[in-house]
Amino acid sequence: MLRVGYIGLGLMGKPMARNIMKAGFPLVVHNRSQAAVEELVAEGAVAAHSPAEVAAQVDVVITNLPDSPDVEAVALGENGIIEGAHEGLIFIDHSTIKPETARHIAEVLGEKGVLCLDAPVSGGDIGAQQGTLTIMVGGPEAALEKARPILEAEGRTITHIGEAGAGQVAKVANQIMVAAQMVAMAELLLLSQKAGVDPERVVQAIRGGAAQCWTLDNKPQRLFAGERGPGFKAYMMLKDLDIVMDTARAYGMPVPSTATHTQLFRSMQELGLGELDNSAVIAVYEALTQTHLVEKK
Amino acid sequence: MLRVGYIGLGLMGKPMARNIMKAGFPLVVHNRSQAAVEELVAEGAVAAHSPAEVAAQVDVVITNLPDSPDVEAVALGENGIIEGAHEGLIFIDHSTIKPETARHIAEVLGEKGVLCLDAPVSGGDIGAQQGTLTIMVGGPEAALEKARPILEAEGRTITHIGEAGAGQVAKVANQIMVAAQMVAMAELLLLSQKAGVDPERVVQAIRGGAAQCWTLDNKPQRLFAGERGPGFKAYMMLKDLDIVMDTARAYGMPVPSTATHTQLFRSMQELGLGELDNSAVIAVYEALTQTHLVEKK
Repeated sequence: MLRVGYIGLGLMGKPMARNIMKAGFPLVVHNRSQAAVEELVAEGAVAAHSPAEVAAQVDVVITNLPDSPDVEAVALGENGIIEGAHEGLIFIDHSTIKPETARHIAEVLGEKGVLCLDAPVSGGDIGAQQGTLTIMVGGPEAALEKARPILEAEGRTITHIGEAGAGQVAKVANQIMVAAQMVAMAELLLLSQKAGVDPERVVQAIRGGAAQCWTLDNKPQRLFAGERGPGFKAYMMLKDLDIVMDTARAYGMPVPSTATHTQLFRSMQELGLGELDNSAVIAVYEALTQTHLVEKK
Repeated sequence: MLRVGYIGLGLMGKPMARNIMKAGFPLVVHNRSQAAVEELVAEGAVAAHSPAEVAAQVDVVITNLPDSPDVEAVALGENGIIEGAHEGLIFIDHSTIKPETARHIAEVLGEKGVLCLDAPVSGGDIGAQQGTLTIMVGGPEAALEKARPILEAEGRTITHIGEAGAGQVAKVANQIMVAAQMVAMAELLLLSQKAGVDPERVVQAIRGGAAQCWTLDNKPQRLFAGERGPGFKAYMMLKDLDIVMDTARAYGMPVPSTATHTQLFRSMQELGLGELDNSAVIAVYEALTQTHLVEKK
């Protein structure tokens, strides 16, 4: 049985680590705050004091962290994974970070004989709890096949996209579409209302046709009920969109639509609404028009 | 049995009129070009020389025309429906036009005792042929209920949205989302490719998650196969987006994302690509980057 290490036990990481443990893998955990560590230790995990210490005693080490600098520090910094690395160790990163950072880490750890998989996920905290996440994987296919039983404990759809960084590129693509749907939903709901039409009827009429999407299937009823909490927090959407824009710049790709969406999510953050669900980007339009989407009880 | 008149036998109107006739309704037809008229007459329809002549001999008169001025001319112009109007006539317009034009026509024809339904459709030429269209209806509900058997011959999902113009507002909302999906698909496919990743793998990975939509379900395989013909022509998408922008302006609603998409479809039109499918908006990005989406044989 592969021994697994898990670093980063947040909203996503903790339930994902728990699912790995439930699937029978021995688990070593490390986290900045201790509450989540103690919780998983009570369920059978072993605590370690640093990423290096985790890496030294496992076959597969997993990170699930907020942003590129966090992953770089945990992987390559002091007391990082690199200091506990050994030939044949598999490193899986579930964080959403810049493709170029993922490639850099793969290169540096590769020199120590570590096989690196960038494996960002989509599906939110509910997907993490239920083990139904979509996982997009870049890196050597042989390492993916070896680690697949672990990934299958965490998610449902596991797709090998290509070489190092390719998983992060797929996540970039995913976030381009998600942001577009969230913003389009905001524009169409509030315009319908301002034009004197019941936006709920509009959604009922259009969601079965060419406008059909996950966002229209899942989000309007929450907005109509006045529920704007996460879900997927808007400041994380903004962080991901900044990665999209950095990536588009790095590869010489103009993305005028996503550029607009990034500005809207930045406005949302500056309005103090970053902790709300990404569907609450409609609040930016409400602020601009001094019109509130009517809620139904 | 209600007698039905049909004006505008184009790519959409002809199959829709045929489905009404197949459902058993006696049909009077009128069209600018005669080929489509002769075709339907051979199948049992009766030809009329003007919209007025159609209106005079039916219970329900339907129009299916390209744009707002066309509908206004056919409804209110010389030899128009207004000249053959009679108390209790139901007028259904399936064209996509400005909500304010729909309201104006309903007001003027209403003075002659005509009941007006603006009833734009979504679902394309295939939906028109198969009778599976989504129909969004504005206007008096009693008129909709009387005409419902006819609409059910044309489409599958018939939703009453609200008063006159409300059907057009729903279509505006629909096109906001459709344009957003088409443009997001273009940005994510070409960025993936430029970042060195197979865009087909990316689509496979993301289409089952939060990015899921009708567009990603139906369009990428056509683009990868090099098929860019319609479908739904880009110049019609642009016409519809101009209606969205006019409507947003009329109601004081900023729509920065849709504004960007309108510019992209106008660029597509100016590149001479307006006859292609709306999914071919990726060609604008290809022109900007001198990179062509790789086709697979």
